Amino acid sequence: MSSADTTTDDPRSLILTLGCPDRTGIVAAISGFITEIGGWITEAAYHSDESSGWFFTRQAVRADSVDLPVDEVRSRFAKVAAELGPETRWRLTDTGEDKSVVILVSRDSHCLIDLLGRAERGEFPGRIRAVVGNHPDLRDLTERFGIPFHHVPFPTGDAAAKADAFGLVRRIVDGYDPDAVVLARFMQILPPDVCEAWAGRAINIHHSFLPSFVGARPYHQAFDRGVKLIGATCHYVTADLDAGPIIEQDVSRINHEYNPADMVRQGRDIETLVLSRGVRWHLEDRVLVYGRKTVVFA
Amino acid sequence: MSSADTTTDDPRSLILTLGCPDRTGIVAAISGFITEIGGWITEAAYHSDESSGWFFTRQAVRADSVDLPVDEVRSRFAKVAAELGPETRWRLTDTGEDKSVVILVSRDSHCLIDLLGRAERGEFPGRIRAVVGNHPDLRDLTERFGIPFHHVPFPTGDAAAKADAFGLVRRIVDGYDPDAVVLARFMQILPPDVCEAWAGRAINIHHSFLPSFVGARPYHQAFDRGVKLIGATCHYVTADLDAGPIIEQDVSRINHEYNPADMVRQGRDIETLVLSRGVRWHLEDRVLVYGRKTVVFA
Amino acid sequence: MSSADTTTDDPRSLILTLGCPDRTGIVAAISGFITEIGGWITEAAYHSDESSGWFFTRQAVRADSVDLPVDEVRSRFAKVAAELGPETRWRLTDTGEDKSVVILVSRDSHCLIDLLGRAERGEFPGRIRAVVGNHPDLRDLTERFGIPFHHVPFPTGDAAAKADAFGLVRRIVDGYDPDAVVLARFMQILPPDVCEAWAGRAINIHHSFLPSFVGARPYHQAFDRGVKLIGATCHYVTADLDAGPIIEQDVSRINHEYNPADMVRQGRDIETLVLSRGVRWHLEDRVLVYGRKTVVFA
Amino acid sequence: MSSADTTTDDPRSLILTLGCPDRTGIVAAISGFITEIGGWITEAAYHSDESSGWFFTRQAVRADSVDLPVDEVRSRFAKVAAELGPETRWRLTDTGEDKSVVILVSRDSHCLIDLLGRAERGEFPGRIRAVVGNHPDLRDLTERFGIPFHHVPFPTGDAAAKADAFGLVRRIVDGYDPDAVVLARFMQILPPDVCEAWAGRAINIHHSFLPSFVGARPYHQAFDRGVKLIGATCHYVTADLDAGPIIEQDVSRINHEYNPADMVRQGRDIETLVLSRGVRWHLEDRVLVYGRKTVVFA
Repeated sequence: MSSADTTTDDPRSLILTLGCPDRTGIVAAISGFITEIGGWITEAAYHSDESSGWFFTRQAVRADSVDLPVDEVRSRFAKVAAELGPETRWRLTDTGEDKSVVILVSRDSHCLIDLLGRAERGEFPGRIRAVVGNHPDLRDLTERFGIPFHHVPFPTGDAAAKADAFGLVRRIVDGYDPDAVVLARFMQILPPDVCEAWAGRAINIHHSFLPSFVGARPYHQAFDRGVKLIGATCHYVTADLDAGPIIEQDVSRINHEYNPADMVRQGRDIETLVLSRGVRWHLEDRVLVYGRKTVVFA
Repeated sequence: MSSADTTTDDPRSLILTLGCPDRTGIVAAISGFITEIGGWITEAAYHSDESSGWFFTRQAVRADSVDLPVDEVRSRFAKVAAELGPETRWRLTDTGEDKSVVILVSRDSHCLIDLLGRAERGEFPGRIRAVVGNHPDLRDLTERFGIPFHHVPFPTGDAAAKADAFGLVRRIVDGYDPDAVVLARFMQILPPDVCEAWAGRAINIHHSFLPSFVGARPYHQAFDRGVKLIGATCHYVTADLDAGPIIEQDVSRINHEYNPADMVRQGRDIETLVLSRGVRWHLEDRVLVYGRKTVVFA
Repeated sequence: MSSADTTTDDPRSLILTLGCPDRTGIVAAISGFITEIGGWITEAAYHSDESSGWFFTRQAVRADSVDLPVDEVRSRFAKVAAELGPETRWRLTDTGEDKSVVILVSRDSHCLIDLLGRAERGEFPGRIRAVVGNHPDLRDLTERFGIPFHHVPFPTGDAAAKADAFGLVRRIVDGYDPDAVVLARFMQILPPDVCEAWAGRAINIHHSFLPSFVGARPYHQAFDRGVKLIGATCHYVTADLDAGPIIEQDVSRINHEYNPADMVRQGRDIETLVLSRGVRWHLEDRVLVYGRKTVVFA
Repeated sequence: MSSADTTTDDPRSLILTLGCPDRTGIVAAISGFITEIGGWITEAAYHSDESSGWFFTRQAVRADSVDLPVDEVRSRFAKVAAELGPETRWRLTDTGEDKSVVILVSRDSHCLIDLLGRAERGEFPGRIRAVVGNHPDLRDLTERFGIPFHHVPFPTGDAAAKADAFGLVRRIVDGYDPDAVVLARFMQILPPDVCEAWAGRAINIHHSFLPSFVGARPYHQAFDRGVKLIGATCHYVTADLDAGPIIEQDVSRINHEYNPADMVRQGRDIETLVLSRGVRWHLEDRVLVYGRKTVVFA
């Protein structure tokens, strides 16, 4: 009931992310390079991880401060990276290039509609290219937003038919070459080969505060244990069920008056928020994985 | 990535809300009445307000435990209420009767899409009958959900034309006889006569933690003051700008890296959650107003 | 830097807590009784537990509104309770009678000093009668507050000597006939017979968000798993390690920059708050246990 | 009830903080310098403030990685700073040099006891040298911790006598040459000359979520307004009452059942936490002030 706030879009940026064994002089090497190409750093974050002995950084540079083409920046930086040692892993992306996202769903609509709304408002730097469902329930909702919906039925009980279904899902998803495959309450366990194919790109929301309540019906598990907070966890999918690197978690207070159905309803809000943060950070190259953990430069 | 939770719907209930000057024996009178008609209480909440000397209660009774028609229950309870004194205010509603909701919007879609999604999922006991916008921007989104959209342009600067526009909005809204008029980031200040006509039914979301940052551009005010948390407030609309009885508030942590545009984006999540809770509690008859404050039996 | 707030003490109250199999008319029976003895209810809370089919309530009645001695109220209410069935469990306490608390500690001072400070400020209705430590480290701190400290050394490795030490702890504690035995970071596992002797009175703080990270070094477990929030859990002690009925939990946000030592430091604040809430609610008769869960009328 | 966590102390570090008008090459200049002196950076944080056009950084360097005496590092860095322009403000501190803290109090003990406990546990890099009270109430508590207590009575109503009292407080405080003067619920408004003398070192806790409820009795103001969350704010003291740069804020949920006395009690926990965080960050050189705002590299 008051006048409008205006949102200004972030300018186009080059995003550099890097991880390497820690030693002195890394920051100097990187910032020296950026200065050399005239780069104006708008965001910079660092992390020295004592336990692993690794160093991680993310730097955002205004694209208009750098005169070189992105590929030229990449090839020059490759030399800097090489000097930081053979284990160094790095990436340079251009926020001007839209990322693509595919979403997997079952029947629950809350995460899907939230992501569709955010994408339509431009809240994250990616375009939802398609939605794949093992049930047809969310076709109508998806298509209202102008996004193609693929229904791939999953037969229960028949392992071979299920493997076929996963094969089909994988072909559909891979056809979009997505930067993120978002499991938005997708109620099927990805087989190991699919986990591997999508490693570092498949993002799941689990409806508990992991590592509590792994597996099926976590709200019912929470009810039985009598916890006073329920939670949700966004994590990268690995072959180890609900044990992949955690990107984000949050919780919500409950009390003795909540039955499992109340928890399911209230939990939706936490699932939605936690998943949307995780997806945005992933698409903005804010998440670096090492081992089974993440560095999140949020 | 785990198997489904099932949501069981709450059974049909009769909801009794009551406020009266406090004294001994009120609970005994009410619970005696409910016992007499065979009522099975599934939820009961009480509040004795020391500062005002008033007593408030909300009771949910399983409809199938009571053999009488609702109107008969009402007329019998009227006698109990009368014995509690002439100032007693009470209400008995039947959750089997769907409530109707009209939403007012401007250009921001986040609260609207959230409410449309929740209504479609059946998360609150009401049906969205129409959306009215002073801009046409959200017509398409609204109509995708099968809800009628009314565009009422608001001329700037011309007071008489603005009064006409409000007259038209009011006629449209009143045509639906709504139980709730939700101002979902509606960027016009309701005139006093409209506030009065919709008293106790018009619910606004203000994008600050009131009473801080009343009026225009609260995120910019928050940025200038350097606060470390931003917030949102859901309140009943009164003729006194942003000063009506508060239903719900929440906050979200920010830091020095947030510019106003970042706050606007992050604030949307808090606005959305806070508004949806306020609307649900209102529709579930959980909010009792006294003076400029509320009792919320959440 | 502004003028004083004044705290008014709550008036003396009678607190009735009750649990029984649910049926219609319970509230009418209880509130009828309270009305009959002239009782002015200042707080009343109810819970119908669907899954167990039990009903729970807590009622606070101003002591000065009731003319009868407390024992007479008890003996009259016993008849009401009897009519609610043989399984009914109830209790009537008088807030005018101070409760007694014994605290068990090891070396960490944060929970102890917090409880000593709250007791000195009168924040909970109980008096700390003694502190027992398996190390002497906290003797000085305890004695500064005028509380006796008992040092009972726990030999490592020798089961018989450990059993003797627990025997001594139990004799000391039982000598105070405490309403609460608070394990304020006491680093010894109570043997089953002690758990049983103190059932419903022994309150522990565990430094994780249970059921995650049961047992030793939970912050190190949390660090290894890469969670994004750490937590603490206050629960009644049972023979089943870290699995007793949960009274209260809370969490605190961390990120990749936190090493285990940082978590230990930040975790202290959550442990302290969660334990102090649990102890206060217990002493105010706000916690009702059923099975392995609690109803907390906070 | 589980085995001990061990806290490892942070190694001795040199902490560099710097603010200057933003331009390209600042990070390269600073990190180049640190590399040159062999410095191992363990923590580094940066902030480019768009609205002011300033750049801020904080860097922690392991002291044992630098062979030069601290003064030599300072004099060499002065040249780097000079190249960053005449407006550049910087500071280099050695965590091996303990900071000194003086605390001002009135009658409320909760913040004082919390700070005494943290100091005794070594939770922040400073030593509490003295406590000054305008009432004698907290003398006993202070002295139990072996800290000198100075009682300076503040006559009410007599401006000249009050000025004298402040003169005396200032002489006592200045005698300790403190790095932080902590107003731990000190219920007197500092006069402008004292604010100026202690600028950037005097830290206050205000018991509301500023800018709401400036001035006296904020919990009563909050009660009257019917807010659903109460808060606390830690800020640097300036001559403008409750309007200095905010270091930290937090909130706590309340509801209609809370009277002002309940808010006062619950508010203590938030005040305590918020003040202790602010004091620690200040003593760790994590807070940089610009204008009426802060950058907090927490």
